[in-house]
Amino acid sequence: MYYIGIDIGGMSIKGGLTNEKGEILFRHTVVTGSYTKEHTIASDLCVVVDELLKQSGISTAELCGIGVGSPGSIDSDAGIIRYSNNIPMEKVEISSPLSQKYGVPVSIANDADCAALGEQRFGGGMGKKDVILITLGTGVGSGFIIDGKLYSGRKSAGAEAGHMVIRTGGEKCNCGRRGCWERYASASGLIRQTTAVMGKYPDSLMHKIADVEGKVSGKTAFDAAKQGDKAGAKVVKQYLKYVSEGIINLANIFRPQFILIGGGISHEGDYILKPLQRSLNSLTYGAKFNPKVKLALATLGNDAGLLGAAALNM
Amino acid sequence: MYYIGIDIGGMSIKGGLTNEKGEILFRHTVVTGSYTKEHTIASDLCVVVDELLKQSGISTAELCGIGVGSPGSIDSDAGIIRYSNNIPMEKVEISSPLSQKYGVPVSIANDADCAALGEQRFGGGMGKKDVILITLGTGVGSGFIIDGKLYSGRKSAGAEAGHMVIRTGGEKCNCGRRGCWERYASASGLIRQTTAVMGKYPDSLMHKIADVEGKVSGKTAFDAAKQGDKAGAKVVKQYLKYVSEGIINLANIFRPQFILIGGGISHEGDYILKPLQRSLNSLTYGAKFNPKVKLALATLGNDAGLLGAAALNM
Repeated sequence: MYYIGIDIGGMSIKGGLTNEKGEILFRHTVVTGSYTKEHTIASDLCVVVDELLKQSGISTAELCGIGVGSPGSIDSDAGIIRYSNNIPMEKVEISSPLSQKYGVPVSIANDADCAALGEQRFGGGMGKKDVILITLGTGVGSGFIIDGKLYSGRKSAGAEAGHMVIRTGGEKCNCGRRGCWERYASASGLIRQTTAVMGKYPDSLMHKIADVEGKVSGKTAFDAAKQGDKAGAKVVKQYLKYVSEGIINLANIFRPQFILIGGGISHEGDYILKPLQRSLNSLTYGAKFNPKVKLALATLGNDAGLLGAAALNM
Repeated sequence: MYYIGIDIGGMSIKGGLTNEKGEILFRHTVVTGSYTKEHTIASDLCVVVDELLKQSGISTAELCGIGVGSPGSIDSDAGIIRYSNNIPMEKVEISSPLSQKYGVPVSIANDADCAALGEQRFGGGMGKKDVILITLGTGVGSGFIIDGKLYSGRKSAGAEAGHMVIRTGGEKCNCGRRGCWERYASASGLIRQTTAVMGKYPDSLMHKIADVEGKVSGKTAFDAAKQGDKAGAKVVKQYLKYVSEGIINLANIFRPQFILIGGGISHEGDYILKPLQRSLNSLTYGAKFNPKVKLALATLGNDAGLLGAAALNM
């Protein structure tokens, strides 16, 4: 049983041929192009599929399906990319041309959703049926697995937990609202919070760390806090409060077995997991008598999306 | 095809015998008692069922099932009331004793969840598969129907959208968090907001309205605003902003066809629906290219829970 998973990114389109255990047997990557109505991204997806079939020597008869993860708003039922902002695309057919060419089922879903599915099947959430993946990176991504199945809202147009307001009247978000979770819990948000506190604490270790690194990053405050810097600890505490607000909101609505944390910030590991788990244990609604929600790290890194895309047909 | 639905409330336990169209053919209500380990609420449920069977002359062979809606945290799989605060109960078996006695399927779910199911099957959300019911009353209740089925979180321990923080660091909620939606969007929240603004505007019409009514209520600011009172309009505008924050958060995660508004505040009708719909249309994530979410009123009033409980077995 072989599967192809393809993860469309702003820079590259990464494909992998996997088995049903989620082992990636062959890989092929192409550079993301710019696409027109005539030359759509589907042609580049075919390049990836052709190469994977060639490398592996596997025929389409042995292939159970092709799965595609794409940024933007995806209509999974219709098999189209409804709209993508990152790689400019509107109403691009994917499933139909690929399934006609290869004669296998072709599925498409949002890339964050694929990452969640990948983690639930083969990564940090393996063996659990109700898993939410939160990625704390440039933005805040989210993917939901309910009862073992990907849930991305009606017509795959939901699952945008990063655009849940946690601070009415707060910072302006590029989605048009104010106070979205993404503004506060993303690495970009953390950098803004770090910079603001650094301005108030000229003696903070954070200045030295940023000088050495050449910039303020999502690690600056964490590194300073770990070395006992009070201003750094202040930033971290406030940032984790913001992260926990959204996590507990989701726990109160979905009560999953696992909430997995991925993205750049997840490299802080236990340093963030432990305080977040404490907040979750004490502040989730009816925490004493209701099933627990466990936090854990996403484990598949950059392969989560590709593996989840492959899993769309498993 | 006959069904029994029972809605457990703090004051009364209301039962109804319905057909598959959601028509209530017979009713029986008993006063909610206080229960012990030996004398559980199950005995009162039996009183209701017995009376409905007697009134209707229907035998258990013609009965497709008994559904129960209860406040608190329900374990629907195990058929027990896990915990209820309102009517003090802990780990009370419901499905097992009732199904043994009557020989029919017995289902139990949270009362707000039942109300959502009732509205989706027979009320404001009829014919739609993805419906969220929000009740703006003493608290903020929520129930979720996804793809035609009741969704109440893993082990029925979720769906608590009222305890989604929309204002980090805001008002203290009795769930232990600060800034929950319920604190701002409930009728109780509106009354607090009204009272606060009245304190700043001694000439506001709200004072007269409250005097006539004998108290500040969830209607005071609305009534004043409708008569051109600026302070009243200010309260209403801010209150609807709070309501919209939670509604748009849920739209961004679930993207349902309908979000239904029930509870006392819903009597304001179009006066609240229209501005809320405008906010939803403009601020939902990717509003331009994604499927629309429509707001509407819940229509079943106090029967929503009973009918939803009956529908648990349909």
